[in-house]
Amino acid sequence: MTTYFSEAASVETVNARMSDTTDPRLAEVMSSLVRHLHAFVKDVTLTEAEWETAIAFLTRTGQMCSDTRQEFILLSDVLGVSMLVDAVNNRKPSGSTPSTVFGPFHVDGVPERRMGDTISLDGVGEPCLFVGRVVDLDGRPIGDALVDVWSDNADGFYDVQQPDLQPQHNNRGVFRTGPDGRYWFTGIKPVSYPIPDDGPVGEMLGHLGRHPYRPAHMHFLVTAPGHERLITHTFVSGDGYLDSDAVFGVKAPLIVEFEERPADSDGPKWRAAYDFVLPPKA
Amino acid sequence: MTTYFSEAASVETVNARMSDTTDPRLAEVMSSLVRHLHAFVKDVTLTEAEWETAIAFLTRTGQMCSDTRQEFILLSDVLGVSMLVDAVNNRKPSGSTPSTVFGPFHVDGVPERRMGDTISLDGVGEPCLFVGRVVDLDGRPIGDALVDVWSDNADGFYDVQQPDLQPQHNNRGVFRTGPDGRYWFTGIKPVSYPIPDDGPVGEMLGHLGRHPYRPAHMHFLVTAPGHERLITHTFVSGDGYLDSDAVFGVKAPLIVEFEERPADSDGPKWRAAYDFVLPPKA
Repeated sequence: MTTYFSEAASVETVNARMSDTTDPRLAEVMSSLVRHLHAFVKDVTLTEAEWETAIAFLTRTGQMCSDTRQEFILLSDVLGVSMLVDAVNNRKPSGSTPSTVFGPFHVDGVPERRMGDTISLDGVGEPCLFVGRVVDLDGRPIGDALVDVWSDNADGFYDVQQPDLQPQHNNRGVFRTGPDGRYWFTGIKPVSYPIPDDGPVGEMLGHLGRHPYRPAHMHFLVTAPGHERLITHTFVSGDGYLDSDAVFGVKAPLIVEFEERPADSDGPKWRAAYDFVLPPKA
Repeated sequence: MTTYFSEAASVETVNARMSDTTDPRLAEVMSSLVRHLHAFVKDVTLTEAEWETAIAFLTRTGQMCSDTRQEFILLSDVLGVSMLVDAVNNRKPSGSTPSTVFGPFHVDGVPERRMGDTISLDGVGEPCLFVGRVVDLDGRPIGDALVDVWSDNADGFYDVQQPDLQPQHNNRGVFRTGPDGRYWFTGIKPVSYPIPDDGPVGEMLGHLGRHPYRPAHMHFLVTAPGHERLITHTFVSGDGYLDSDAVFGVKAPLIVEFEERPADSDGPKWRAAYDFVLPPKA
């Protein structure tokens, strides 16, 4: 008995078309996707004009992508999908440092620096000492941990966004902890910045009455033998966008007091202390 | 009290960010989209690698689009979304001719032809007489109806896909009914053809063990004063792909017996009779 398409049986009709030999995980993901997509269309009775708008929006989003711009990641970010994918894949034991979105600005292959080095290669911005330890769930130091850090510059741009204006690897560095688990390096106090908003995603945010800003943050990717990888940020306490991060990256335990040093003291103007707690590898 | 992102409250956190001044319909559509997208991610526990695959797939889909190729419409078609949008917007009274997908190959501004003219401008293919009436729900003829028709050629391509190989408007025409509601014209018996499958959507169909073929069909767009517009196809009875149309366009009442004329008879080899029933404008 052939089943032709009908509104009532739309999901079953589409999913029945998959071959029995389809990879089981792909079949699971695609049949769920079809179920939720169809439920969306039915719930809102999507009009033909709205469907056309959606097709045009997705097309422009794809065509905005280039080697230095990933508009679909931005779309995923502003809809909370990136944070959700992070959440369902990083359910950590209590006491662990929470993860947050990776973002599109990490760079592989940044050279390891000597502990204490500065990552502010252009010397522009308010110097800040970042200090702390990498520890396990029992508070024991983790040695040989790689602490990979990156932030925007004083104007709110990552080096890769301005290859002609910033030194390569400006405000990036990789540091390796010793047996005491400690890390320290000088960077700048990060500043809040808008995600690129001159494309379809920016237009969408405008229609939704949302701003494109992210609160100031320092990115951390911490890896250590025998422990779960941690991708997170620390956020600058008091930032005006903490409650409205365009990509929903903020979690309360990641907000850090940036301590202003006395005007007559030596060294960096700011100090941000934070310990990273890594659970054992599952 | 600030709500930061959490897996449990992900939907509410994202949707709460919309401004109160957002257009109410846009707010309805977007909040439903976020709800279903997040439910999908949670239901399948989408992995980070799968999310990356999805981002890359959507990006390639957008970048495949051009003036003559709309890969996102193909994606919508093969997931049954186009047929569903058609269905929820065209719930017709019993007795009406069912609608089906519009497809990407209609052309605006095709000149009206004299009733009975042929639309096979290249003369290639098996000639077929298409005949019938445009009537209302009570079977009364509708005069002054425009019957806009288009099909592929004998090789399975629409004229717009082969602008250098086919005459302009090959296998297309617009006919106007008289007071008796009748239409008749000569075209060719359409042939089944694959949707363009050399892009991301074709790859996806391959992974799902699905073929890209559509059963042979003639497109009709019927408009008449005082009546609902009808977008539909007629399908060739006996076609091997009727039960597995790649875009789910087939509905049982749209399958038509193409009658083969006796070998010694005059005129076209085939004859396809079909009446279109239009409900009054809502």
